Amino acid sequence: MSSPHLPERTGAEILCVGSELLLGSIVNSNARWLADQLAALGIPHFRQQVVGDHRSRLIAALQSASRRCRLLITTGGLGPTPDDLTTEAIAAAFDTALEERPEVWADIQAKLVRRGGIPSAALRRQALLPVGATLLPNPTGTAAGMIWSPLPGFTLLTFPGVPSEMQVMWNATAAPWLRQSGLAQGVFASRILRFWGVGESTLAGQVEDLLACPNPTVAPYAGAGEVTLRLTAAAADPAAAAALLDPLEAEVRARTAATCFGADDDSLASVVLAALRQRGQSLAVAESCTGGGLGAALAAVPGASDVFLGGVIAYANAVKQQLLGVPAELLREHGAVSDPVARAMAEGVQRQTGSTWALAVSGVAGPGGGTPDKPVGLVHLALAGPQGCTSEGVQFGASRGRGWIQTLSIGEALNRLRLALG
Amino acid sequence: MSSPHLPERTGAEILCVGSELLLGSIVNSNARWLADQLAALGIPHFRQQVVGDHRSRLIAALQSASRRCRLLITTGGLGPTPDDLTTEAIAAAFDTALEERPEVWADIQAKLVRRGGIPSAALRRQALLPVGATLLPNPTGTAAGMIWSPLPGFTLLTFPGVPSEMQVMWNATAAPWLRQSGLAQGVFASRILRFWGVGESTLAGQVEDLLACPNPTVAPYAGAGEVTLRLTAAAADPAAAAALLDPLEAEVRARTAATCFGADDDSLASVVLAALRQRGQSLAVAESCTGGGLGAALAAVPGASDVFLGGVIAYANAVKQQLLGVPAELLREHGAVSDPVARAMAEGVQRQTGSTWALAVSGVAGPGGGTPDKPVGLVHLALAGPQGCTSEGVQFGASRGRGWIQTLSIGEALNRLRLALG
Repeated sequence: MSSPHLPERTGAEILCVGSELLLGSIVNSNARWLADQLAALGIPHFRQQVVGDHRSRLIAALQSASRRCRLLITTGGLGPTPDDLTTEAIAAAFDTALEERPEVWADIQAKLVRRGGIPSAALRRQALLPVGATLLPNPTGTAAGMIWSPLPGFTLLTFPGVPSEMQVMWNATAAPWLRQSGLAQGVFASRILRFWGVGESTLAGQVEDLLACPNPTVAPYAGAGEVTLRLTAAAADPAAAAALLDPLEAEVRARTAATCFGADDDSLASVVLAALRQRGQSLAVAESCTGGGLGAALAAVPGASDVFLGGVIAYANAVKQQLLGVPAELLREHGAVSDPVARAMAEGVQRQTGSTWALAVSGVAGPGGGTPDKPVGLVHLALAGPQGCTSEGVQFGASRGRGWIQTLSIGEALNRLRLALG
Repeated sequence: MSSPHLPERTGAEILCVGSELLLGSIVNSNARWLADQLAALGIPHFRQQVVGDHRSRLIAALQSASRRCRLLITTGGLGPTPDDLTTEAIAAAFDTALEERPEVWADIQAKLVRRGGIPSAALRRQALLPVGATLLPNPTGTAAGMIWSPLPGFTLLTFPGVPSEMQVMWNATAAPWLRQSGLAQGVFASRILRFWGVGESTLAGQVEDLLACPNPTVAPYAGAGEVTLRLTAAAADPAAAAALLDPLEAEVRARTAATCFGADDDSLASVVLAALRQRGQSLAVAESCTGGGLGAALAAVPGASDVFLGGVIAYANAVKQQLLGVPAELLREHGAVSDPVARAMAEGVQRQTGSTWALAVSGVAGPGGGTPDKPVGLVHLALAGPQGCTSEGVQFGASRGRGWIQTLSIGEALNRLRLALG
């Protein structure tokens, strides 16, 4: 099974066990969480696998991983039911007998009694570990894990699939063990720079030479309207990593100018709210096709209430007239999806709430409601501020669907205000 | 590389390419979506892999998959930047030259011009496909995929990592192709039943005997407030699968009564909108701590506009007074987070919009703003209807954080209206 490309064991892999992942029932959030933890510990991580609750496939996956990596993290398959096969498959893959650990069985019984349950014979399976494995205790559940090196230079750690139990076990036992394991190669430090109003390929072109650099690395990624660059440095310690990242970030920001709106946990909403807070100004919204999503994006930011006053969800035309004072003849003459109406919405909510700034959105999110001159994807965005009000029509395209059009409308509206505050 | 356990090629595998997945930057939602699609097509799916943007590891993963499975689906690595390596690695893994497809390059240029961009030399890489591969067109983006059998009995399909582009390509080209490919072994049919107002363990207890049944299977999952049961049947054809699922669904619904609010693509919002539509009634919202999220949940449903009129985001108290007519003395006496104010908000928006029903939400989403008698997580929910208005305080708990409290508030508000319409 050894490959000419990868002759030596290197780095870590994650193996998630569970047919529910193969049936698409749940998203693999454990793999993401573990990947994040490995990066923070500076343990390079090269592959993830998912297999179902199937003994021979699980054994094959364990054996092939044991030839490639130094550290294998498994999740899932530690429960008491017959389709929980991980511990048994590990013992079989590395030709080792299982033995019952009395301290684990005592702990399982105690937990069950505390919950008012009766320890069943099935649960006793969870007290089995391969001979020679070290217990990885589960403080909150009955599915204990193991830390075991069945082969020289190869160690595996097992965790249950329940995210909260896995995370407690990781933090309490696995992370401290890994820190002193010698598997870490310094640290990886990452910084994410966030962009709006630029395509992935244009952005990549602006930093093309940097994309080829081995350390620190720069990697572009396209999301829903937002594009990001992830800067990652490998170094001996966090200070050395920062010394690599700081000048790189400055260089990227200098090249990309105003399209870079923030870093790491920033969102367009958080950046706009921070800029308004600094000026002591306030914001209100008037939303038609986004139905409250623009307000929700602002309200998602902790502490938004000192800047964000609220606004009007003017989905129906009658609400545009009644709560925002949009004149009926404007609606008749131009239609709701138009610059005059978007402007009247922004000015209306600014007047009604007394806000410094107001954003208004009126468009056709689809899938129905499009016409030849107002097709699905056409959205008018208005911004009212201390110096007056402007509006513009943007065509996001019908093909991306309702949710995407709403998301782009929200981002585009916030970005206009960000640039106006710039 | 062949294993004694798996001598013949069987089923499908998914290979997701992208260092961002290994760094924990994003969750692998594509793998879940594809797993769901494969299950619906009755194509057994045995393994998922994730590798980074690393040529030799990618080639090794492609080659090992080609020895195990009949169908390999890849996502990611089709972009224009140097770290997009999938097409090139596939050609190398199966020793085949790349060639430019003029029709793909013409399509890329046309798309760029339409967006007001300039086709760069880098983008031209995206027009390369291995000799002999069939184009898998990308209607919305520039990253085309391929359908290719580099070895007898082994076919691979490539998709970009952007979920919306991948999904459009799957639905337009890949799914029809797979349906006639002969890869399906009967069908897997799944139905998801959706519940609100019941915990996962309580729900599991109500169907405990069904959880052990091998076909059809019942599997519980807990989401953000919502709990689901996934019913899955394996059968020769869709009619036989439905004959297994229909009586099971009826049995589960009979046991769980009103906590089951819908199935499959239903959401609390879509179910409430459908019930109101049937009665010819309308709905408005008044939101404080959810900031527009309740309206956005309603507006996410296509065709919401014939029932959902809109409402007021009354984040600041001045907006509650000005736009909803909440009396200042009510705010002074009881505070914004109280039943009297929530009722006044619901009645205010009902009066202002003329809606049949109105929902109001006022609470402390945190992390700041809590007090001993109005702690973080306390939310008052009011429902105004033809027979008057009621309000109730609910304590969601501070520990789950702002986003979770907002999500639960939205679901709980919609569920109250659903039960009132019941």
